[in-house]
Amino acid sequence: MTDFSLHPQLAADCTVLADAPLSRLLLMNDAQYPWFILVPRRAGLREIYELDLAGQQQLLAESVEFGRAAMQAFGGDKLNVAALGNMVPQLHLHHVVRRIGDPAWPAPVWGRHPAVPYTPGQISERQQALRPRLGADWRWL
Amino acid sequence: MTDFSLHPQLAADCTVLADAPLSRLLLMNDAQYPWFILVPRRAGLREIYELDLAGQQQLLAESVEFGRAAMQAFGGDKLNVAALGNMVPQLHLHHVVRRIGDPAWPAPVWGRHPAVPYTPGQISERQQALRPRLGADWRWL
Repeated sequence: MTDFSLHPQLAADCTVLADAPLSRLLLMNDAQYPWFILVPRRAGLREIYELDLAGQQQLLAESVEFGRAAMQAFGGDKLNVAALGNMVPQLHLHHVVRRIGDPAWPAPVWGRHPAVPYTPGQISERQQALRPRLGADWRWL
Repeated sequence: MTDFSLHPQLAADCTVLADAPLSRLLLMNDAQYPWFILVPRRAGLREIYELDLAGQQQLLAESVEFGRAAMQAFGGDKLNVAALGNMVPQLHLHHVVRRIGDPAWPAPVWGRHPAVPYTPGQISERQQALRPRLGADWRWL
């Protein structure tokens, strides 16, 4: 097994925000929704069930902590959590804070509307809203 | 908190297959994909992070066991696991076994094509393929 590296498509579509103990936190470059991705930093993973039990539970813990924080930070009505990976096989877990009336509501966000890129200032705002709501073991990059 | 009951939309769209210790297993009535849903049998839940820690870990364990079994039973290329709930707020976790070239591939399945209902015989085939791959604590209905 080789060392972990982020899939080039995720690297192209996202901004790296932080590393939790297991996962890298990415911001999807689409200002229409607060849309984040957790990527376990283990090479060769495609499915959640390929992680060992400790890894599965760590991913769950990071997903739960992140999801609750993001819902609070961005005032969401519903959180969408999904591991799809049909286009990018590297295991990655979407977390999309949905608001009633957002551009895709109530449909899922994937493939719905062309992405609206963030300005650097908007990316910083996303980060500042999250940072105080996440634990000290999230290392911001 | 009232007793658990399945959301009427899930009851209308799905066939109940089994109860795991925490979750009810449903088969989505769309023969185009092996598409299943786990619904924790706790009233009033909307988000994974609203479960207590033991409940979160039980849901994860059932999702992992079920996902691996379904991928083996139906020869999947990629598993899609998702908690969306924009239309049906009751917490439910989709598990869709995806195959390269299936009707929606590589897009997500939601809202893609009208459902193609199963015949009773096909439902029984789905159940028979899964049953030997799941533990004794899945009670078949």
